[in-house]
Amino acid sequence: MRAAPLVLRPDPAAAASIVTLADVRAAHRRIYRFIHRTPVLTSETLDARIGGGAHLLFKCENFQKVGAFKARGAQNAIFQLAEAEAASGVVTHSSGNHAAAVALAARRRGIPAHIVMPRTANRVKKAAVVAYGGRIVECDPTQAARESAAEAIRQATGAALIPPYDDERIIAGQGTCALEFLEQAGPAGLDLLLVPVGGGGLLAGTAVTAKAVSPATRVIGCEPAAVDDAARGFACGVLQPALGPRSIADGLLTALGNRNFIVIRALVDEVVTVSEQSIIDAMRLVWQTLKIIIEPSAAVPVAALLEGKIPMPADARSGIILTGGNVDLDKLPW
Amino acid sequence: MRAAPLVLRPDPAAAASIVTLADVRAAHRRIYRFIHRTPVLTSETLDARIGGGAHLLFKCENFQKVGAFKARGAQNAIFQLAEAEAASGVVTHSSGNHAAAVALAARRRGIPAHIVMPRTANRVKKAAVVAYGGRIVECDPTQAARESAAEAIRQATGAALIPPYDDERIIAGQGTCALEFLEQAGPAGLDLLLVPVGGGGLLAGTAVTAKAVSPATRVIGCEPAAVDDAARGFACGVLQPALGPRSIADGLLTALGNRNFIVIRALVDEVVTVSEQSIIDAMRLVWQTLKIIIEPSAAVPVAALLEGKIPMPADARSGIILTGGNVDLDKLPW
Repeated sequence: MRAAPLVLRPDPAAAASIVTLADVRAAHRRIYRFIHRTPVLTSETLDARIGGGAHLLFKCENFQKVGAFKARGAQNAIFQLAEAEAASGVVTHSSGNHAAAVALAARRRGIPAHIVMPRTANRVKKAAVVAYGGRIVECDPTQAARESAAEAIRQATGAALIPPYDDERIIAGQGTCALEFLEQAGPAGLDLLLVPVGGGGLLAGTAVTAKAVSPATRVIGCEPAAVDDAARGFACGVLQPALGPRSIADGLLTALGNRNFIVIRALVDEVVTVSEQSIIDAMRLVWQTLKIIIEPSAAVPVAALLEGKIPMPADARSGIILTGGNVDLDKLPW
Repeated sequence: MRAAPLVLRPDPAAAASIVTLADVRAAHRRIYRFIHRTPVLTSETLDARIGGGAHLLFKCENFQKVGAFKARGAQNAIFQLAEAEAASGVVTHSSGNHAAAVALAARRRGIPAHIVMPRTANRVKKAAVVAYGGRIVECDPTQAARESAAEAIRQATGAALIPPYDDERIIAGQGTCALEFLEQAGPAGLDLLLVPVGGGGLLAGTAVTAKAVSPATRVIGCEPAAVDDAARGFACGVLQPALGPRSIADGLLTALGNRNFIVIRALVDEVVTVSEQSIIDAMRLVWQTLKIIIEPSAAVPVAALLEGKIPMPADARSGIILTGGNVDLDKLPW
């Protein structure tokens, strides 16, 4: 007989034991000189396309250093390592943007970065890691292979592990994006905040920040239906295993982390899922109307809007974090 | 015996008789509520790629209404029509972005817009005109055919002609972009301002503004070598005829206008030319590093940097106006 899995109840105190707004503010003070305060774009054409009087605001983390919000968390984690911890460098595993972010942050700190990447990772993302001076170690494209390779390097080199999402420093760092966004949204604020969810670093950080700064803002996680572990886990309270690399949204293939799950279960209002075709349609729509390059993962919240999955009050102001823009321009999905 | 062509000497007084900074400021007051104050982006990666300590600032008119700076001039012209002039609508000829801009401005004014477009115009640009309620009339892809079709419509309908570039109101409107840009560049200012040149509305407006607001800023026109009428005319002082549709930069196929030529000859410091391959390379480089969609015409100044055509002092701050982002995503040039 197997024990029934532990069902996690929404518990704000548990969430607060992981990351608080104070941590997010401290992270912002630590990193703001090294990141872009990315712009917020709007488009009447896109608003009209979504309909229902929607007013959409897009926080363009595709313009962030390394082309993704991941620069926030990685720098927050690496800049606060004690000298002794940092001395032997850092190690991480990532399918892409976190990898480049760790390489950049390590280079700024003047320490080596060992990056475990799945053999199948996007070649543009691999090239970015190399460009920032990271040392890539390839592995099989499974969560277990990634974690064990990173652990082996940690033991061999003494490098400090910088997890991609299941980490207080990473969650706090990613939360700085919502901090800026809510400020940039001005006095009218945001009724909704739509965020893609993979490992849950950005969604958890966003929820911590939004619920503290602007409690009325609904925070909604958006996930490919093909890798819907977060949606199912959020609904039933039981952390779900990863589902393998079967979505075009290559940044969202990992399962939720433990810490992320606790925060998300406590503070997020809803997690919705979208089809692969909607992701492609949404990506193209954003390219065409906002004139910006976003990667498939970043299109997931827009896909949720296209699918009518986001219940919106009339004239709602919806903030969408466009998470990254690292795309292989020779392999577009249309 | 043919008479020798009139050689135009650089004449600031002649330029000032066409457009002044006061006209540009008046234009900005007229249109600022109806345009985006487009953001200025920078990229260390792109700076490094260009080398020489370059610091590049990109004014993103690809995010402008209708996806191009043309929204500025068209609205400036159409908003200042007297009621009687506006009553019968407006007519223009354009290969694309000016067409959409006139359609948008006319819709805002509540009047019809007749748009003469070459049969060969980019289908995305045609679709935009239709979306903004413009009535397209197709013509052969020559300057003469465009102008005569527009004139015929003007006579038949009484519509007011809104020329695409050879017009004081258009030049002043396009100059508002440089007005914002120089302000956004902050106290460090801009050492160089690089602008694509086709009909010369943007280049002329930029030169008027820059030379009045920031006289030390060098203003450089950038043109495809395949349609180098502006470069040759600038060099010899004789206005050159159009060269036909033989560049990928579909926004730059027209010849300089008369007014534009007078202003450019007086106030612009240099006009450089670039190859078609450099334009494609530059376009892709901007997509990849800035994560934004620009059309080939907008890539021309970046192509000039890639070709080493722009003499830059060390640590120069170069402002580049990214003029538009209307691209057929199904027909990318790589």
